[in-house]
Amino acid sequence: MPSPSLDFWFDLASNYSYLSVMRIEALAARAGVAVRWRPFLLGPILDALGWEGPPFVVQKEKGAYVWQDMPRQCRKYALPWQQPTEFPRRTVLATRIAVLADDEPWLPDWCRTVMTRNYGDDREVDSPEAVAHMLTALGLPAQRLIEEAGSDANRARLRERTQTARGLGIFGAPTFFVGEAMFWGNDRLEDAIEAALCPPQNQDIV
Amino acid sequence: MPSPSLDFWFDLASNYSYLSVMRIEALAARAGVAVRWRPFLLGPILDALGWEGPPFVVQKEKGAYVWQDMPRQCRKYALPWQQPTEFPRRTVLATRIAVLADDEPWLPDWCRTVMTRNYGDDREVDSPEAVAHMLTALGLPAQRLIEEAGSDANRARLRERTQTARGLGIFGAPTFFVGEAMFWGNDRLEDAIEAALCPPQNQDIV
Repeated sequence: MPSPSLDFWFDLASNYSYLSVMRIEALAARAGVAVRWRPFLLGPILDALGWEGPPFVVQKEKGAYVWQDMPRQCRKYALPWQQPTEFPRRTVLATRIAVLADDEPWLPDWCRTVMTRNYGDDREVDSPEAVAHMLTALGLPAQRLIEEAGSDANRARLRERTQTARGLGIFGAPTFFVGEAMFWGNDRLEDAIEAALCPPQNQDIV
Repeated sequence: MPSPSLDFWFDLASNYSYLSVMRIEALAARAGVAVRWRPFLLGPILDALGWEGPPFVVQKEKGAYVWQDMPRQCRKYALPWQQPTEFPRRTVLATRIAVLADDEPWLPDWCRTVMTRNYGDDREVDSPEAVAHMLTALGLPAQRLIEEAGSDANRARLRERTQTARGLGIFGAPTFFVGEAMFWGNDRLEDAIEAALCPPQNQDIV
């Protein structure tokens, strides 16, 4: 039997992705489930689906609720929270860095750093200055990584990643996959880990 | 201090309302939280919000996912499940009965009966025959209740109920209220019960 694993698709600008980015490593490690981090950009997918922007922005009532829900969820999970004064924040360079890092050991740290700066401190996370500051704080070669992140090859890698997400039928973030079984939303993180541990439960999905 | 309670707003046609209708009584009773059942019609609210129909119907990718999510949720909660061949099903008469029952002791039983017939047995739940059959099985005077449910006074009561839901900012079902704090979705049922038990946690909602 292959060792249990799941794919974790998330968008660094997404507020519910924040909750999973912060929670997944400890939960998966405790369960003995390997996680493949798959940062992507949700924006182009929503455009392609014809949804006319993030649901929380387009549907004002739902958007208003989200800012009531988020502080409670953060309190529940003991995560820092400050309602961002800008939403969704631009995160293209930060995501290019994440895609460049791919399976580097510092990828989770990078994502947590970006997420807590945006949702814990209400600060922008995409200017070259902010990105350099965060990379340096992680002991990484900021200048070189920023250059590589902006290379044609890496831009193409992010576009491909996002195309792959679309091909998988992803319509929101975070989304987890255990084999072909899709689990949408931070509220399904525990279910996805459970499913990774009990593969027979995944077989009978309609 | 007032005894802990929450308001439970749900739509008898809604699949995620099914999960909460089946779960709430046991969970709330164990926690010592009183539940006010508030059936309403989501359709007119979605119309008023300009959302052009149920999100799971309008947004096909999300809709496809829902039929992957529902059997897993039902397995998790040990609830019967058959994917309905018609969605959303018409439930106007069934909802008028529910509104007529208001705080009657048989209201929860009525809602569970309608829900399990729709989502557990894939059968229609709104014809006078089906409604009479279900009421009779609960030992209730079917003919009289169906007549009263269709009266002008009771139709007006359902319209008012739905207007009240709209005034509360409800945009989906199920939705729970603990005081003014809104909790949207079956995934928030446990949080809402928790909040009802710890009112100070509700005070600092932005």
